[in-house]
Amino acid sequence: MTQIKFTQGGVCAPLGFKASGISAELKKSLKPDLALIYSEVPACAAGVYTKNIIKAAPLLLTKKHVNNGKLQAIITNSGNANSCTGKVGEYHAYQTAKELAKMLKIETNLIAVSSTGVIGVQLPIDKLLNKIPLLITSLNNDGNHLLAKAILTTDTFIKESAVEITLSNGETVKIGGVAKGSGMIHPNMATMLAYITTDINIDQKILKKALTLAVNESFNMISVDGDSSTNDMALIMANGYANNSKITLLKDPDYKIFYQGLLSLCIDLAKQIAKDGEGASKLITVNVTNAKTNKDAKKIAKSIVSSSLLKSAVFGNDANWGRIACATGYADAYINPNKLQISIAQLILFEKGAPIPFDEDIAFRLLDKPEITINVDLGIGNKSATAWGCDLTYDYIKINASYRT
Amino acid sequence: MTQIKFTQGGVCAPLGFKASGISAELKKSLKPDLALIYSEVPACAAGVYTKNIIKAAPLLLTKKHVNNGKLQAIITNSGNANSCTGKVGEYHAYQTAKELAKMLKIETNLIAVSSTGVIGVQLPIDKLLNKIPLLITSLNNDGNHLLAKAILTTDTFIKESAVEITLSNGETVKIGGVAKGSGMIHPNMATMLAYITTDINIDQKILKKALTLAVNESFNMISVDGDSSTNDMALIMANGYANNSKITLLKDPDYKIFYQGLLSLCIDLAKQIAKDGEGASKLITVNVTNAKTNKDAKKIAKSIVSSSLLKSAVFGNDANWGRIACATGYADAYINPNKLQISIAQLILFEKGAPIPFDEDIAFRLLDKPEITINVDLGIGNKSATAWGCDLTYDYIKINASYRT
Repeated sequence: MTQIKFTQGGVCAPLGFKASGISAELKKSLKPDLALIYSEVPACAAGVYTKNIIKAAPLLLTKKHVNNGKLQAIITNSGNANSCTGKVGEYHAYQTAKELAKMLKIETNLIAVSSTGVIGVQLPIDKLLNKIPLLITSLNNDGNHLLAKAILTTDTFIKESAVEITLSNGETVKIGGVAKGSGMIHPNMATMLAYITTDINIDQKILKKALTLAVNESFNMISVDGDSSTNDMALIMANGYANNSKITLLKDPDYKIFYQGLLSLCIDLAKQIAKDGEGASKLITVNVTNAKTNKDAKKIAKSIVSSSLLKSAVFGNDANWGRIACATGYADAYINPNKLQISIAQLILFEKGAPIPFDEDIAFRLLDKPEITINVDLGIGNKSATAWGCDLTYDYIKINASYRT
Repeated sequence: MTQIKFTQGGVCAPLGFKASGISAELKKSLKPDLALIYSEVPACAAGVYTKNIIKAAPLLLTKKHVNNGKLQAIITNSGNANSCTGKVGEYHAYQTAKELAKMLKIETNLIAVSSTGVIGVQLPIDKLLNKIPLLITSLNNDGNHLLAKAILTTDTFIKESAVEITLSNGETVKIGGVAKGSGMIHPNMATMLAYITTDINIDQKILKKALTLAVNESFNMISVDGDSSTNDMALIMANGYANNSKITLLKDPDYKIFYQGLLSLCIDLAKQIAKDGEGASKLITVNVTNAKTNKDAKKIAKSIVSSSLLKSAVFGNDANWGRIACATGYADAYINPNKLQISIAQLILFEKGAPIPFDEDIAFRLLDKPEITINVDLGIGNKSATAWGCDLTYDYIKINASYRT
């Protein structure tokens, strides 16, 4: 049994990491908008990036740097995505990395640059560069909160998590994380960003494998509005401060322990993002069980959690299982309608191809809660998947009807 | 140059077709909810159906009947989708066809049955069967309006169209159509339905080919909320009353003329559906030009018109081209960001990888109109596609938060 204990400190929980968050006046509101995560030594690093063909300038630069396998610092701003900004935008991302490297006295390619905010507007680069000295002097062992705040856009709360895991020989290591989301993925004022730190000693290839798998089961299983931003990224830095004997093989039992810890952390952050979807009033969890394949289970879970019709129904406390059946049917996965069982908030509503009568008042009351679980049992295999999302409310429209103003 | 003239009469415009629409009290509101289209003689027929794996009982029956290549009547109800209703629902669809056939004194397999409305509730079949005599005696040469009204659910206006086309020898034939949509495709209270009539004399295989192609360029290019219903269908009946020399080959010049007429009719109906999307205040047309392939052009046009973020921005008169760039990038089609040109309502906002400054006030005024056109020039080929949709408004949420109540 893997031992995973949730703890405090976010990205500063693992040994050897500091963080800071300040205002560089990129946001009109003058809220914090520039942040830094710093490892005392170069850390083994890996990243997962947006699949959007249009990629923001900082993302392209970061990808290049992470490809070397090492990072020591992540600088990130909100208020401006530096996306669709042409050669000028590329230069701004490079200037940011270069200036920070100079001040930190490290190699430029040890720096990741990340941005979120409005698309198609040039970064006020001087404002940003001028604040780098303050950003560095603000680095602190408990700077995680300020960092978490500085990467928010339309998010309504900060998103942090940290876990402590116990390796096979009893040693403990920590994994910390911070994320932002809100409109998932909201290309204009938000973006899905996640930065993860850990003090575990691990080979870079193994780290990359673990991150990719964990992202697939967590951040890639949430949906707020189905849009996929030009800036999305998840980065991990492992600095080896825990001093465990280095994990170099997937079959090392400590790899499994680390992966479970990382997955728990990522799911925790992903659920926080889903819960804070733009205008959301409820977290929706969709469990699909007994599918033929994992792929089918995932497709159906995501199809359901992405249905605007279902999301609106959940907002209205309406046990509209027909919309779940419908989204199951168009998910492009193998199902047998006669084996299907659908339940919302524990009420079984559809079974063996036919509806089951239910009490509308009880259903309304079961749905009138901040967290709703939908279970879809396909009854044709043994694979399962879970996806998370939120309801669709008037506030989503309100937030998105005039973002740039 | 194909001669296409829009005309009046909907499905009753072509010779030999009658229609009726009455109330069978399936809707609580007592608005018309039962309708019939009747051809004086058995007509050559074809259909296109939902891709949802879960298919409503009437759709399964209709598919079987249409597979014989002939139809003489289409009976259709709103207020109840007869979907996810098991064996009982299947029997109800069969009973409907059988009773109507008996009264019309025709073969049961010449009848199509179609339903739209709430999912998972059994049809009050006796109410429906009892009204069949009245439905038949109400058949009329100008019953098209009543029919159009009786298939509506949350639609706010009826959707009809008719065209007159001139064949190569100067003969004229007519094509008429009626549709419903609203939530596209809204599985619980609505569905995309289209019934088309024509007096042209045409081979069944050719007719099917024409319908399939026309649907791909029209009804399959609209999006209101991306959900795909269990009841969607488009049916066509061609009764040959025009007496033209029968079209039996795709290379017959009259085929091309017929296809252009059919396509114009379908696009006209599709745009009416998009315009009446649930809660919609604006029709959005997205033209994608100069793509490498037709498939790429279609994928991008649909990706843009389906983006909740873009739809919200259009509602708010916000010239948020970043969301268009974003939806272009995640459409899973080949693009080159540096060749991309994006314009909204004639304003060019993005070109050659970089934004073009614009006057926000002028943009707001250009967007403050009931019909908005977005042009995306990919600049890398010569294929194009058009998609239609609507904005996302507070009313969409309002309509969908508590539909069954």
